[in-house]
Amino acid sequence: MDKKFTIAFDINGNDNGIFAAVSASYSFAKQNPDFKIILVGPEKEILETKVAGFVKKPENIEIINNNLISLNPDNIRSSLHEPTSMNIAIDLVKDKKAHAVLSSGNSGLYLAANTFKLKRLPNTSRAAFMPIMPTIFGNKWLLLDVGANIETKSEYLVEWAIIANVFAKIMLKIENPRVSLINIGTEDNKGIETIRSAHQILKSTKDLNYIGFVEPREALNSICDVGVIDGYGGNLVLKSLEGAILSFKELLKNKISKSIVRKIGYLLAKNAFKDVAETLDYRNVGAAWVIGIDGVAIKSHGGSDQKAYIGALNQIKLGLENDVLNKFKLALNEKNE
Amino acid sequence: MDKKFTIAFDINGNDNGIFAAVSASYSFAKQNPDFKIILVGPEKEILETKVAGFVKKPENIEIINNNLISLNPDNIRSSLHEPTSMNIAIDLVKDKKAHAVLSSGNSGLYLAANTFKLKRLPNTSRAAFMPIMPTIFGNKWLLLDVGANIETKSEYLVEWAIIANVFAKIMLKIENPRVSLINIGTEDNKGIETIRSAHQILKSTKDLNYIGFVEPREALNSICDVGVIDGYGGNLVLKSLEGAILSFKELLKNKISKSIVRKIGYLLAKNAFKDVAETLDYRNVGAAWVIGIDGVAIKSHGGSDQKAYIGALNQIKLGLENDVLNKFKLALNEKNE
Repeated sequence: MDKKFTIAFDINGNDNGIFAAVSASYSFAKQNPDFKIILVGPEKEILETKVAGFVKKPENIEIINNNLISLNPDNIRSSLHEPTSMNIAIDLVKDKKAHAVLSSGNSGLYLAANTFKLKRLPNTSRAAFMPIMPTIFGNKWLLLDVGANIETKSEYLVEWAIIANVFAKIMLKIENPRVSLINIGTEDNKGIETIRSAHQILKSTKDLNYIGFVEPREALNSICDVGVIDGYGGNLVLKSLEGAILSFKELLKNKISKSIVRKIGYLLAKNAFKDVAETLDYRNVGAAWVIGIDGVAIKSHGGSDQKAYIGALNQIKLGLENDVLNKFKLALNEKNE
Repeated sequence: MDKKFTIAFDINGNDNGIFAAVSASYSFAKQNPDFKIILVGPEKEILETKVAGFVKKPENIEIINNNLISLNPDNIRSSLHEPTSMNIAIDLVKDKKAHAVLSSGNSGLYLAANTFKLKRLPNTSRAAFMPIMPTIFGNKWLLLDVGANIETKSEYLVEWAIIANVFAKIMLKIENPRVSLINIGTEDNKGIETIRSAHQILKSTKDLNYIGFVEPREALNSICDVGVIDGYGGNLVLKSLEGAILSFKELLKNKISKSIVRKIGYLLAKNAFKDVAETLDYRNVGAAWVIGIDGVAIKSHGGSDQKAYIGALNQIKLGLENDVLNKFKLALNEKNE
């Protein structure tokens, strides 16, 4: 690896084709000359992609020609051994030819392939999906797991809390992250058994600023920096929050279009709406870290656009430059000392 | 019972005192002379409450003097036998002195007391909390269970689907309700075991327009008329939707206040915001039906205002006039024929 850091980017998984991935990569590569991106995707198409401001592909972009996505992603066992772009990209990390991997492919498969090929971190039972979530105050928080695990045990929740705590310190620059469990109530006896017993363990976990249960009603109000929950519950929370915001926007647009006076009012207040959209930008949520594995891996939304991919690449950059993976390991080792 | 219908109303459970309950009852009683409301609460305070438009309490309001709420609602067994206003109100239904009960008291206790005193409907394993939810198109849908049950079995989900289907027909006037399971994905293999096996049963349940899984991302987009889910998941969805809407409103208000031009724009578009607020009014969600018990019971939010209580009283009215309880029984009997 000649460059300081190399990112393997599986670009076959986007619902809208390769343009967003290619243009985001070109722009990121130009701005970060000490990074290399290996695009795993259709070489001819990539080279034919016209990206504004580029006459040809930047030198720090490499291509591994590959057109394959898994034909039957539900059959994880067989999919893991197919020469798909996703598997090739993860293998680059496994073989120390890349420092991180990014993909928009099938979530379940990506999780399984990362776990199978890169292995789990020491003292970690399960990997989890962790998006960086918005708040109405502009700061960010971490929600995990949002669906990697359907059956969750309390020890997983504790391990995820420890990893996400380190992540919040390094990546979100929060000195003493407020770590919580997301639950249906704030009293000790509320919620499912898994959450309640993790609550008891976290209360006595040292070096962790555990603040107890937080209700999803407060999720966007910056009431915690880390919110840990089982994968089923976390996925419901994530999709409900996202859905409510999108539906609200849709409704407002519709009600504003009902009269010319309302439309004029909207034009005058337009920057307020822009600010709101930026603060609660779902594209920040479109990317989720795969945490708990021995590698830096991000899963981007299947509908990611250029901005979303640049966001994901910058997250990877920040993670690599801050050596986030080794800091997870350190924290997990301390836990078991 | 001299009047056509009598409603027992436990008014001690509101966080802000009795005013909202008393004024809502007066106004409802005046508009519905064939209804009687029995207020179970502090008599002196009720009689001293000044309600605009009333020189004294309407004749079709009765009072049972009671100041007691449970001191230890977590101890359900002992709470059930205390002479609290909640227990007295439910006993009125049990003793056929009232047709329905309304309370803002402790949810868990209210559920237990209703189940214990009124018993479950035939062929029904568990009661559930069911709010009437908004959509961005103005129509309503039913979400259940939102937290009565933490551990849910697939047969509960099926029974609730059958009851809610009847409810949607009668109360929401939907000819052929679209019944769904709320889940983290739409494919057959998605979600927890309980949901997946209920999915298989519902697919072959006759006289039910079962449309399969619906993701919470679509919850407010009128994609189903009945959404059934386990109580843990349902509570997370409800609180996430509500939280996201409240946070979004808060953020918008904040961003509009940043400049005078934005404020003017807001004033011009004000009716659009009013329309949005009305369409997604959380006060409709503040009340939840306790379904699955042999009685008409509604739980109102602890912070209910007058409008919220009038909404709840009108829901009870509609339910009683349409004989909703007997129609549930009919549907449940047919299921087991």
